[in-house]
Amino acid sequence: MRFVAVVAFGFLAACASAEAPPANAPVRSLGEILEQSPASDWRTVDQANLLYMQLPQGRVIIELAADYTPLHTDNIQALARAHYWDGAAIVRSQENYVVQWGRDEADPRPMGEAQATLAPEFDRPRAGVDITRLVDPDTYAREVGFAHGFPVASNGRETWMTHCPGMVGAGRGDTAESGSGAELYVVIGHAPRHLDRNIATVGRVLQGMELLSIMPRGTGPLGFYETPEERTTITSVRLGSELPASERVNLEALRTESATFRDVIESRRFRRESWFLDPVGHVNVCNVPLPVRVRP
Amino acid sequence: MRFVAVVAFGFLAACASAEAPPANAPVRSLGEILEQSPASDWRTVDQANLLYMQLPQGRVIIELAADYTPLHTDNIQALARAHYWDGAAIVRSQENYVVQWGRDEADPRPMGEAQATLAPEFDRPRAGVDITRLVDPDTYAREVGFAHGFPVASNGRETWMTHCPGMVGAGRGDTAESGSGAELYVVIGHAPRHLDRNIATVGRVLQGMELLSIMPRGTGPLGFYETPEERTTITSVRLGSELPASERVNLEALRTESATFRDVIESRRFRRESWFLDPVGHVNVCNVPLPVRVRP
Repeated sequence: MRFVAVVAFGFLAACASAEAPPANAPVRSLGEILEQSPASDWRTVDQANLLYMQLPQGRVIIELAADYTPLHTDNIQALARAHYWDGAAIVRSQENYVVQWGRDEADPRPMGEAQATLAPEFDRPRAGVDITRLVDPDTYAREVGFAHGFPVASNGRETWMTHCPGMVGAGRGDTAESGSGAELYVVIGHAPRHLDRNIATVGRVLQGMELLSIMPRGTGPLGFYETPEERTTITSVRLGSELPASERVNLEALRTESATFRDVIESRRFRRESWFLDPVGHVNVCNVPLPVRVRP
Repeated sequence: MRFVAVVAFGFLAACASAEAPPANAPVRSLGEILEQSPASDWRTVDQANLLYMQLPQGRVIIELAADYTPLHTDNIQALARAHYWDGAAIVRSQENYVVQWGRDEADPRPMGEAQATLAPEFDRPRAGVDITRLVDPDTYAREVGFAHGFPVASNGRETWMTHCPGMVGAGRGDTAESGSGAELYVVIGHAPRHLDRNIATVGRVLQGMELLSIMPRGTGPLGFYETPEERTTITSVRLGSELPASERVNLEALRTESATFRDVIESRRFRRESWFLDPVGHVNVCNVPLPVRVRP
């Protein structure tokens, strides 16, 4: 197995080590925790839920959140099957906020079997969702943690995915029902948690975040590019399930309900590497890496 | 007065409006709040505390935190006077974490009157510091808010600056006393608050953050560049007080103890713009913009 960089949350195995107290427990690096994990703690990411976005600079792979936002997942899959984003562009890059892409109104394309607008899916009932909870307080929600591989929050009645870096959302207009998934954005800065429950998060970047986050910032309002020349054209977006096997990347994600993932959380809460003079003892929902690896 | 983009926290006046309830209060945009502010709510940033870092791509301006880290401020000022960073380079760009710069060991330069190492300055006594507090809970500290123009936290006894995007820190080795300010980094991702009290934050970027945050990510461990060609060479770093008046930028920062800044905080806590379907009602210490403007 080759471990890939944990792109969505930006930790490198090389800089990460430690597990929970007691102090005499062996200090394991994040890499060691993952290497010692049982195979059953990993899930094979469903290729039907993967978007492969080809840019001139390289490839971005996004996992859709079929459990939390099934309507958006269906619609985005339909748009990918219609090759809706081929020739679309990165249209916005706002410092410490989001990078966004979509089609120009002047260059429309049929949406295939996709709907033009969708029900909001800004949250879902909390009942029946198994959340691996964090114990530290959160500024925005009563409860935070992880479910189905994504960072989530809850008020006890509803649960929703949190706008951590690497999370992908579906742009909308002024009304709740105005989004479709045709216009997508990815969080590139400090989590804009005020967007939680105001807009549908639909997935997260598993690979290639480092291509999106360095898009030159736009100088127009909200970081939109002011000239066509500033935009990056998207070569194609395809579902993994539509690609020939030779072009797929076999990704495995650590199950967020696994014992190994709990060890990952504790290794981030208590920093026992020698460099840390203060072991911290807290961790935010957007500071826990969500490990992904490539199966050869 | 011309308002500049609030670089360190990435909000644009164009996307920001609203103030605290009651619901019948007029909704003011962030731009309106600032335009209606009295001149006394702004401070002229001391040019002696400003680092002008010239890159091939443009200019970055950093304010040093003379109140929280006076020893580091003195040392960094001495390094700038010695032209220590002229010909130094951006050596590291780690996704969702930090961009770092310094001199190559193979190309040293005299440090002038600066010390090779400093006392830690990871925190200071809480007593006597006037903190504009936030009321929402924080994951990492008992108390968070703003003091002397910077985001801060406290445990009741000590206070320290928080690692929000745009904050600049002084790299160190394994011991607390191993930093000097010669190697600096800036936060580019979700706040790595686990660094708080483990390393000295020494200032923040007031202008040019959009140049640093898009540095291509390094492929070595911790995001270090693996070849000299990947690095960006720093043309020069100068103190504002050493520049001819014609080359200075007259920056004013909103006083974080002012009534106007409290209005800014409330406008971010309660999102009353029509786009927001949920008014949120919470704000994190790293999601409050710290407004800066240019005086013509």
